[in-house]
Amino acid sequence: MKDMISDHLIAEQPWYRPTGNELSLFEAAYAARMPVMLKGPTGCGKTRFVEHMAWKLGRPLVTVACNEDMTASDLVGRFLLDADGTHWQDGPLTLAARHGAICYLDEVVEARQDTTVVIHPLTDNRRVLPLEKKGELLKAHPDFFLVISYNPGYQSLMKDLKQSTKQRFGALDFDWPEEEIETEIIAHESGVDPETAKKLVEIGTRARNLKGHGLDEGISTRMLIHAGKLIAQGVEPVPACTMALVRPITDDPDMRDALDAAVATYF
Amino acid sequence: MKDMISDHLIAEQPWYRPTGNELSLFEAAYAARMPVMLKGPTGCGKTRFVEHMAWKLGRPLVTVACNEDMTASDLVGRFLLDADGTHWQDGPLTLAARHGAICYLDEVVEARQDTTVVIHPLTDNRRVLPLEKKGELLKAHPDFFLVISYNPGYQSLMKDLKQSTKQRFGALDFDWPEEEIETEIIAHESGVDPETAKKLVEIGTRARNLKGHGLDEGISTRMLIHAGKLIAQGVEPVPACTMALVRPITDDPDMRDALDAAVATYF
Amino acid sequence: MKDMISDHLIAEQPWYRPTGNELSLFEAAYAARMPVMLKGPTGCGKTRFVEHMAWKLGRPLVTVACNEDMTASDLVGRFLLDADGTHWQDGPLTLAARHGAICYLDEVVEARQDTTVVIHPLTDNRRVLPLEKKGELLKAHPDFFLVISYNPGYQSLMKDLKQSTKQRFGALDFDWPEEEIETEIIAHESGVDPETAKKLVEIGTRARNLKGHGLDEGISTRMLIHAGKLIAQGVEPVPACTMALVRPITDDPDMRDALDAAVATYF
Amino acid sequence: MKDMISDHLIAEQPWYRPTGNELSLFEAAYAARMPVMLKGPTGCGKTRFVEHMAWKLGRPLVTVACNEDMTASDLVGRFLLDADGTHWQDGPLTLAARHGAICYLDEVVEARQDTTVVIHPLTDNRRVLPLEKKGELLKAHPDFFLVISYNPGYQSLMKDLKQSTKQRFGALDFDWPEEEIETEIIAHESGVDPETAKKLVEIGTRARNLKGHGLDEGISTRMLIHAGKLIAQGVEPVPACTMALVRPITDDPDMRDALDAAVATYF
Amino acid sequence: MKDMISDHLIAEQPWYRPTGNELSLFEAAYAARMPVMLKGPTGCGKTRFVEHMAWKLGRPLVTVACNEDMTASDLVGRFLLDADGTHWQDGPLTLAARHGAICYLDEVVEARQDTTVVIHPLTDNRRVLPLEKKGELLKAHPDFFLVISYNPGYQSLMKDLKQSTKQRFGALDFDWPEEEIETEIIAHESGVDPETAKKLVEIGTRARNLKGHGLDEGISTRMLIHAGKLIAQGVEPVPACTMALVRPITDDPDMRDALDAAVATYF
Amino acid sequence: MKDMISDHLIAEQPWYRPTGNELSLFEAAYAARMPVMLKGPTGCGKTRFVEHMAWKLGRPLVTVACNEDMTASDLVGRFLLDADGTHWQDGPLTLAARHGAICYLDEVVEARQDTTVVIHPLTDNRRVLPLEKKGELLKAHPDFFLVISYNPGYQSLMKDLKQSTKQRFGALDFDWPEEEIETEIIAHESGVDPETAKKLVEIGTRARNLKGHGLDEGISTRMLIHAGKLIAQGVEPVPACTMALVRPITDDPDMRDALDAAVATYF
Repeated sequence: MKDMISDHLIAEQPWYRPTGNELSLFEAAYAARMPVMLKGPTGCGKTRFVEHMAWKLGRPLVTVACNEDMTASDLVGRFLLDADGTHWQDGPLTLAARHGAICYLDEVVEARQDTTVVIHPLTDNRRVLPLEKKGELLKAHPDFFLVISYNPGYQSLMKDLKQSTKQRFGALDFDWPEEEIETEIIAHESGVDPETAKKLVEIGTRARNLKGHGLDEGISTRMLIHAGKLIAQGVEPVPACTMALVRPITDDPDMRDALDAAVATYF
Repeated sequence: MKDMISDHLIAEQPWYRPTGNELSLFEAAYAARMPVMLKGPTGCGKTRFVEHMAWKLGRPLVTVACNEDMTASDLVGRFLLDADGTHWQDGPLTLAARHGAICYLDEVVEARQDTTVVIHPLTDNRRVLPLEKKGELLKAHPDFFLVISYNPGYQSLMKDLKQSTKQRFGALDFDWPEEEIETEIIAHESGVDPETAKKLVEIGTRARNLKGHGLDEGISTRMLIHAGKLIAQGVEPVPACTMALVRPITDDPDMRDALDAAVATYF
Repeated sequence: MKDMISDHLIAEQPWYRPTGNELSLFEAAYAARMPVMLKGPTGCGKTRFVEHMAWKLGRPLVTVACNEDMTASDLVGRFLLDADGTHWQDGPLTLAARHGAICYLDEVVEARQDTTVVIHPLTDNRRVLPLEKKGELLKAHPDFFLVISYNPGYQSLMKDLKQSTKQRFGALDFDWPEEEIETEIIAHESGVDPETAKKLVEIGTRARNLKGHGLDEGISTRMLIHAGKLIAQGVEPVPACTMALVRPITDDPDMRDALDAAVATYF
Repeated sequence: MKDMISDHLIAEQPWYRPTGNELSLFEAAYAARMPVMLKGPTGCGKTRFVEHMAWKLGRPLVTVACNEDMTASDLVGRFLLDADGTHWQDGPLTLAARHGAICYLDEVVEARQDTTVVIHPLTDNRRVLPLEKKGELLKAHPDFFLVISYNPGYQSLMKDLKQSTKQRFGALDFDWPEEEIETEIIAHESGVDPETAKKLVEIGTRARNLKGHGLDEGISTRMLIHAGKLIAQGVEPVPACTMALVRPITDDPDMRDALDAAVATYF
Repeated sequence: MKDMISDHLIAEQPWYRPTGNELSLFEAAYAARMPVMLKGPTGCGKTRFVEHMAWKLGRPLVTVACNEDMTASDLVGRFLLDADGTHWQDGPLTLAARHGAICYLDEVVEARQDTTVVIHPLTDNRRVLPLEKKGELLKAHPDFFLVISYNPGYQSLMKDLKQSTKQRFGALDFDWPEEEIETEIIAHESGVDPETAKKLVEIGTRARNLKGHGLDEGISTRMLIHAGKLIAQGVEPVPACTMALVRPITDDPDMRDALDAAVATYF
Repeated sequence: MKDMISDHLIAEQPWYRPTGNELSLFEAAYAARMPVMLKGPTGCGKTRFVEHMAWKLGRPLVTVACNEDMTASDLVGRFLLDADGTHWQDGPLTLAARHGAICYLDEVVEARQDTTVVIHPLTDNRRVLPLEKKGELLKAHPDFFLVISYNPGYQSLMKDLKQSTKQRFGALDFDWPEEEIETEIIAHESGVDPETAKKLVEIGTRARNLKGHGLDEGISTRMLIHAGKLIAQGVEPVPACTMALVRPITDDPDMRDALDAAVATYF
């Protein structure tokens, strides 16, 4: 079992470019074992930040992509049948709680209530996880730490965390990096030169202004890296931007024209 | 099995600061074996109160976080397959009824009706639990006691306890503690000095006045303790309050401004 | 198996105070094997009446608390896996039909249609129960008798018994006992003196007048017994009534005031 | 297996009082193997008629009470696990088709579509039942015959048989018997004298006129027999009628008064 | 396994009376292995046509009555447990694809999307069926052919085939046969003389004119055959028509009068 | 296992007629391991394009037809029971990720969220697939590549990919080929002469102009090939077009007239 959790240790330092005091606040929350909620749009670097902190704190990282069909058993574990009857298989949350990993529940607001309620006894002073099907009251490892992410742009009347869940977390806001920082990120991650990276960031900035005016979301940092990678493969900048930035996010002809024009301004 | 229930004994006295006659009323209800319902907002100390009473009465405490996907079998138990066929596994309610523990169903109003109906024969003079799948009519241990909690703020037309359930319980109201008492609680739990604790409580009081004017719930005692803990870790009071009190509960810019202003008044 | 059904024999006479001709009508229905439906509000004594009749007729009593998640298999039975493959486990309805017990389906209107349809062949002249999964056509024991209960106050367009079910039963109406009789019941069950019991009954009568004017249901006989028990434990009458009568049934400030005033009038 | 189907043979002639040419039409349909649909209100004698015809034709009768939670597997059969792996268990429809019984699907309109579609290949010239899970294409026994019942009073936009199902059946209408015939039925079935039986029938006739004016259904023949049986047990006619005819079918005070008045007119 | 598929060979020529060029078009489609969709009202002869073509082409015919509760596994197959663990059981679609049968999915529009999507890779040039649970990529037998049927009268916004499904098929329209042809069919199938058959067809024609004016569907060819069969059994024409044509399809008194009048005109 | 994946190697070059720079853009995306989304109407050649690219890149191709009833386990894998207990069976996504195949999720927008979320960790720099039920964190083979398809015409408020999914892909647009190219395709695939192929394409062009004016979708390239194949089988052009182009896509009499007229113009 030790071996399985060690799969989740992050061997090499994940490159992360801080944008504020998020590193020290996370460390203080970790020291106080106050669970942390990361808020921000998709593709702005939340997952990378958690990987970086797990590496920095030397803890294994167990990541779970939440979805509305995930059950509490998917998190906690279940009995599996084998030749000798059944044996218990820890789910990712139990694995992390038992071995002192950081458990990262990505897009937790997508999960059903039974999934979110299951974390309650782990997030107050009890720090226990009742494995009811197994009849075990698991006391969390002292190093266990829980992080969740949350995209406020998706929040609706139908899907929101319960107040009794929210108040168990401290929260850190994430947003698109400032232009200079994002240029540095694009260049580092895609391999294009800083000038090209800057142009891509400027296209991104323009597109983000269209959010709410026909675009559900802007162009994320991840997408700018995609465009950079295609350019680094030798694709001309315009078709690279069309394929990586414009076509994926909208089918509306007017929005496509607006985005194509933004691309043409810079390339 | 004895060993498993003994896991649920509370070894050390949980610190609890009474706010009225709740200790003696709970003890009388326990003496009469009249089940008890705790009403009040999330994070005001209901769980801690039950832990304190379980310790005081010397009974094991089995806590279940209810949710809408929990089935009656999750409470009562089920057959599990092993090498020799199946064996019966008591659920948490059965475990408590069999061994004379206090069973605490947290946020019971979230549960489906089959979960709440299952407690009926345990809550009248019969004090039995039919384990229908096992063909056993379990007579509850004389010390068995049932406690449920209930957040009236969540009550809606869709989700409410049935009258036939409600009338089986005596009820105790909980609310935020008075300022002086809450200051004492914050200081004790987070380790900050009484002056800082008082400031946090005053921020909390302001925020609670915003409930219904843009905030679904106020700032709970638990959140004030979170802020205190960050401060005790060396974080500056303003970012500590931002992370622990403001960011988790609202994404509305106006509400954030109002709460930030409240923080700035005291720190 | 005989042993299991004998668990359901009622050893001691359950105290029951008749309020009309319900004893003789039930006995005639039993003699004619005409199934009986008990109608009335929750907590007025229907369950106690059935226990009394089961004791009087010397039949075991199998009680099932119906709910909307109960399946037909929960009533009829299922195959369970053990070391030698599967064996059949009678459900509570089958158990009663096979061994000549009284089967009492409490709040049957809560159940899904498959649960109610399953009783049809037991409630006409066929008196059989097809155990389709087992391939057995069970002929009911000559002493088998079926009783259901039903709260007309809950009846809605969405949840009502089908006409084809209703017409298979004779019906007895239940309601709150007359004041004198209820006083006798409260005193007997809670141990308070008749004067206190009379005051509790008068509070109950006032509260029942509020039904439909802000209260979904009045205060039941069971709740008055609860208040009496707290008083018998030494709790002052006012907090005892607050805990047992007022707090459990309403969170509306005006209704709480009205009920508190009713309590204050008598204590 | 032969033994199991022989459980379904009807040993003694079920008493049935014909009300028209239904006997000869059913026999002609049986001779042509044209499936039959019985239409009419609940409790008017459809089930008894089918039992009578099964006895007359000397065929076993397999009755299934349909409901909305019944699956196609409940009709067709399934694999069960035993010590030697799995064995196939015929469902009631398969049992009847294999051994040449009459299969009677009571209240078929309650069933889900997969249940009704499953009978299609049995009801045209193919007369086969694909047991898909078993990989068997069962050719129906030459004597197999299918009868379904249907209550037009329940028919709604949401629940109706599909046209492609309806057109596979010939249909016979059923209704309450004429007064003279019904009197004969009541007297025969309950044991009361013809004069009392006639009074009960007249009460029934009055109540049936209230259908659609506050009553969903009238008082069925079955209910009149119930009242007769209570009277035959020595209960006074008025409380017998109250218990068997009035209380079960309505909670509306005005309707109860109207029905009580009808009872008082005759007794 | 060969034996099982041979059960599906059609030994005797099914009588079919062509109404246009449907035989040659079907043969061309079969030669090109272009899947075929049969469109038309229920009971007009689509199933008989497919049986006839299967006989003519010498291919086994596997028929599946689709319904909304049918899963993809019901079509494709599943693992069954036996004494030696599990073995794979081909579903009807797989059976047909493996052995070169014609697979006929009757009323495919009733099926859920997973059922219809599963046929996609069988209906383009790939002609494969991925048995994902078995880890097998089944290449269809060269003689495999897929036919589906579809009743446009049922088509609604909620239930329609997806465009990506429709375009994989050639389509043949079916409707009620012309009077002369239908008379020939009725006489042949029911055994009545041509004059009686002609009268039945004329009643059918009248009823079909009422479609959309109070009748959901007209009287099908199948129902006319039913009436003929009852007459051939010696039932008088009027009650035969009442039982086979009028009572099954409507409970509306006005429509019944109109249909009864149509019957009285000819008999 | 190697053998099973080798089933998915494409032995012969699938004929594909490029319409723009899609070949080189796909190759650059593959080189950068940037997942690709193909957008376009059904039947325009997306599947053929992926088969061609898989052949060109020498990678096995695992295709999955997505549907709303597909679960994450259908993609990832599950435990199957055999004589020695359970063994793990890779699902198609896992198969592809483990052995370095191209995985093509056809019509991914039909799938439920749990299916789409499961691909997230495979589509960012982590390139892992957590097999939670197996307790394995699968690192994707370096050659693994993910392609999805998406029909914007189906996109609705209810069914759309989440932004957090979309932004993980580069996108290529597909549409009907230009007339000259499509004529070449029809002639090549169906075997008709170029003149007939051109007429079919012109009928297709006319029908595509009706999209949104009564037709949900136009006539696809696939359907034109169908008509060509029937003609190549010797069917007259008009009935061939009626069967392959008109009847499958509409039941509306006016639309059928319009399409029939278009056919009559050219043949």
